[in-house]
Amino acid sequence: MSKATGCCQGFLHYVFDYETPKTLVIPHFGVGIVFRFTQLLVVLYVVGYVCVVQKGYQETDSVISTVTTKVKGFAFTNTSDMDPRMWDVADYVLPPQGDKSFFILTNLVVTPEQTQSHCPELPKPSTVCTDDCDCVEGYNDPRGNGIRTGLCENFSTTVKTCEVFSWCPLEVDTKLPKKAVLAAAENFTVLIKNSITYPKFNFHGRNILPHINSSYLANCEFNRLTDPDCPIFRLKRIMAEAGEDFKDMAVKGGILGILIDWSCDLDWWAGKCLPKYSFRRLDSKNPGNDVAPGYNFRFAKFYKRADGTEERTLIKAYGIRFEVIVFGTAGKFGIVPAIVNLGAALSFLSLVPIVADWVMLTCMKKRDLYTKQKVTYLVESPDNEPVSMGTTYGTQ
Amino acid sequence: MSKATGCCQGFLHYVFDYETPKTLVIPHFGVGIVFRFTQLLVVLYVVGYVCVVQKGYQETDSVISTVTTKVKGFAFTNTSDMDPRMWDVADYVLPPQGDKSFFILTNLVVTPEQTQSHCPELPKPSTVCTDDCDCVEGYNDPRGNGIRTGLCENFSTTVKTCEVFSWCPLEVDTKLPKKAVLAAAENFTVLIKNSITYPKFNFHGRNILPHINSSYLANCEFNRLTDPDCPIFRLKRIMAEAGEDFKDMAVKGGILGILIDWSCDLDWWAGKCLPKYSFRRLDSKNPGNDVAPGYNFRFAKFYKRADGTEERTLIKAYGIRFEVIVFGTAGKFGIVPAIVNLGAALSFLSLVPIVADWVMLTCMKKRDLYTKQKVTYLVESPDNEPVSMGTTYGTQ
Amino acid sequence: MSKATGCCQGFLHYVFDYETPKTLVIPHFGVGIVFRFTQLLVVLYVVGYVCVVQKGYQETDSVISTVTTKVKGFAFTNTSDMDPRMWDVADYVLPPQGDKSFFILTNLVVTPEQTQSHCPELPKPSTVCTDDCDCVEGYNDPRGNGIRTGLCENFSTTVKTCEVFSWCPLEVDTKLPKKAVLAAAENFTVLIKNSITYPKFNFHGRNILPHINSSYLANCEFNRLTDPDCPIFRLKRIMAEAGEDFKDMAVKGGILGILIDWSCDLDWWAGKCLPKYSFRRLDSKNPGNDVAPGYNFRFAKFYKRADGTEERTLIKAYGIRFEVIVFGTAGKFGIVPAIVNLGAALSFLSLVPIVADWVMLTCMKKRDLYTKQKVTYLVESPDNEPVSMGTTYGTQ
Repeated sequence: MSKATGCCQGFLHYVFDYETPKTLVIPHFGVGIVFRFTQLLVVLYVVGYVCVVQKGYQETDSVISTVTTKVKGFAFTNTSDMDPRMWDVADYVLPPQGDKSFFILTNLVVTPEQTQSHCPELPKPSTVCTDDCDCVEGYNDPRGNGIRTGLCENFSTTVKTCEVFSWCPLEVDTKLPKKAVLAAAENFTVLIKNSITYPKFNFHGRNILPHINSSYLANCEFNRLTDPDCPIFRLKRIMAEAGEDFKDMAVKGGILGILIDWSCDLDWWAGKCLPKYSFRRLDSKNPGNDVAPGYNFRFAKFYKRADGTEERTLIKAYGIRFEVIVFGTAGKFGIVPAIVNLGAALSFLSLVPIVADWVMLTCMKKRDLYTKQKVTYLVESPDNEPVSMGTTYGTQ
Repeated sequence: MSKATGCCQGFLHYVFDYETPKTLVIPHFGVGIVFRFTQLLVVLYVVGYVCVVQKGYQETDSVISTVTTKVKGFAFTNTSDMDPRMWDVADYVLPPQGDKSFFILTNLVVTPEQTQSHCPELPKPSTVCTDDCDCVEGYNDPRGNGIRTGLCENFSTTVKTCEVFSWCPLEVDTKLPKKAVLAAAENFTVLIKNSITYPKFNFHGRNILPHINSSYLANCEFNRLTDPDCPIFRLKRIMAEAGEDFKDMAVKGGILGILIDWSCDLDWWAGKCLPKYSFRRLDSKNPGNDVAPGYNFRFAKFYKRADGTEERTLIKAYGIRFEVIVFGTAGKFGIVPAIVNLGAALSFLSLVPIVADWVMLTCMKKRDLYTKQKVTYLVESPDNEPVSMGTTYGTQ
Repeated sequence: MSKATGCCQGFLHYVFDYETPKTLVIPHFGVGIVFRFTQLLVVLYVVGYVCVVQKGYQETDSVISTVTTKVKGFAFTNTSDMDPRMWDVADYVLPPQGDKSFFILTNLVVTPEQTQSHCPELPKPSTVCTDDCDCVEGYNDPRGNGIRTGLCENFSTTVKTCEVFSWCPLEVDTKLPKKAVLAAAENFTVLIKNSITYPKFNFHGRNILPHINSSYLANCEFNRLTDPDCPIFRLKRIMAEAGEDFKDMAVKGGILGILIDWSCDLDWWAGKCLPKYSFRRLDSKNPGNDVAPGYNFRFAKFYKRADGTEERTLIKAYGIRFEVIVFGTAGKFGIVPAIVNLGAALSFLSLVPIVADWVMLTCMKKRDLYTKQKVTYLVESPDNEPVSMGTTYGTQ
């Protein structure tokens, strides 16, 4: 036999000889039951919990969505402060575009006919004056409303304050109506159209479900019990679902979240992937540690007078900002998570013999017999008996 | 030897004696080939599929992005309804800020010179009347346009309807032009500037690529084949890429998604992390089960007359909302997913001997020989022969 | 013994006989130490790195958030171009709603009293003319400003240009002030209210922390060192934190990101889940390859003249868009990732005996002794000696 052939054969043996552990069969029912039961526990756990409950074999994707909203309704107001007035969507929805976030005006402080001119400041300790010497010309109080002209003027018959250059007359925002001007907005409805995509799974969905027809949509109104699929929501009802009272919230304003949950298991019939609506107030209600509670902002309508000077109507708008928040995670069988989870499960199965061995060699009556036949101690010379446990490490 | 020393030695033996399985080498080519082939399959699968195709060793991060848009173009309209008019961005883009979502007005119903006043309702079965008795004063029809004054007035020479208090004259939105007023908007262009960040990997990118210079940008226009990197898009072209016709869509409006996919493998040269554009209509086109198809909203321009009364021009705006949707997931080598995937792979390798053993003990001719030498049956007393398989559980 | 009983017993044996590997104990300190040390390395790595550092046992959720902002401050301008003017929030914040993205006007080009009429084009090579023949009636230059009337008019005393129909007079946007008109905006403050939710863990948080009271909030200002929890930010300071100078950026505009990181480990006391603020300029500063650097857009205020014609004031607004970007991932102990990670770790532990066996059978002096007692070669007939390694595959 040549050297090359021998070397080649050695390599073949090295690669293709199959080395398998020698095993000992213990025909003992107790040990067998421990082994099988532990195995069963692991399998149940992995299959039952990881796969069925947690769906560990799925890969996930986050939702991409688009939302349009359309508010309907009008209200008539007739308060002492204002002329009788009819409000429609172009008056009370801001911005008007029907975005996923929209604001409905419910209460307001109007300051009409402001112009760039001079007027006395609102009375505060820092603005009250007795004569012109108290008012430094050009001083710009960060908590005031304009730049001082240096004059001290009558704010009312009893109080004199420093005059400022500003948009005059100044806004007096303490005049906020106690009852929301547009409390009737609770009967407005909003139509929400929502299309979603899970790009990884090429899944598209909309909240107007396929089985719904136009005539139903023309008349329906969302109701969790009777009309859970209708995408038209009455503001009063969704406010109630969020645990709030519309009329209360309308006075100072707030933010209401319309949450649409598109969490889906796409391994099942995709037609079961339906939106779930929920409603939650997003701003903090009445905590002691809040600044500017509620929700309001100022905006102005600008006009030009016949003489060319600019005039504006300043509106401090209180109201409810609705935010349509679309979220969700879709899961679908994925080979990588499946392998990873199955691998982890197999690892646990490899623990089972360790448990069974431990039980067998520790708790069984015949443990010495088992040990003797399972475990061999190294024999120092091929002919010797197994070395005793007394061999010290030092002398080896 | 003292007891303590013995105990200590016992512990040392317990910890440092190395227990290794006894193995049997089967020099059979067939079994060896089954073993190695199964091993190869698992390795190929794990390395090839999990690592190369699915990149299981990577951890991922989601994109954070900012978008600005700038529309350019103007259009001239000369229809019978309106005076000749030049439209520029300040007229047709809403909101004007150049946000990631912007609306381009393409068609409109204008109702000028509305004031808070009285006018007869639009004729509908519920609003037609013959005399004042048919109109209840103060009645607020939810599907009407205002609050009734109690009078029955001539809507036209042939029809009488109940008079309402509202923004008058009322909008007649059935007069929507059949051809979009601003169909010329198809030639407008939009510049999209998009910066992204993957915070976990501290990666920043922009859609204006480093190799692009200003003079190129001043003149280029996106074209998937010839100019795929140009961030300036002609509306007509992106509409065509989405499979829609601009002129059709312009009549009733709609929503078009400009999707920018920043999915990247950051283990490679980061310069390869480039945006991929795609375009898709996001609202449903023409399903039977839709309410308010297309996309429109109402807004008003407010004016003040010389006598101080407020007047508005109500505009029902139809048009196309463009939504720039930036998405993507970046992957980069991560130690945790790498370990988890490698561990799962190792688990599968531990299955291979089970397969090989099964083949060896079931399918091979010499299976009895192999079994005899691999498997030992427990010998009840150390001197006994192995017990026969006939031993019943009952008698043990 | 009947056949059925035998079959049944065979099945019982098959299921409940416990098959355990026969092992050889090597009482060698060196091999033992290699085994235990490798084991320790794997455990340390997995426990220390994967669990403690990377928190591989946690499942994660992405943040859902809502943001409101409120800008405060006013500025007085007195430039040669404009009348003295006081600017307040209703003038310089766009859109006014206090959204998570808001724009503060810092510089502007105003073109007042535009009407739909005729005027000569701005002089450019393509618009300059000598007589009416140079101007084609009805021509619509995409880079021009309107539709040509066919006349050649005096733009100035020295230059004649083609007349166009457009919003006239045309905007001359080269007149942008070198110093930002509203540079004083650097002293404005913005209050940011941010509520977040991790829906999977039902965790809610706000950036106004529980221990903060109203009086503190009324006066505080964010400072990374002294007031890191105050949600009121002075624009100048956050611009400085982002490495930018407000006055510089105010001239041409830009985009500033206010990043709120809510990354949390919810296995710990949830009260430790606090927002971390950071600030970063999001548009590219001054690269050579940019079009339209900075940030600007055009909008118009519409007025109606006494004779009913529409007039507008076109404003090219430069300024800073602030974007509040809330991001973060919360982690909490999850059974699936924990099992997967533990499984992967166990897999690695199963590698340890392979390493120890290799050391034992390769590097130890007594390797032949170990090999002889650990590995048995198949004996062809039960009475034969183990076959020699020389057996060729060909003859088997």
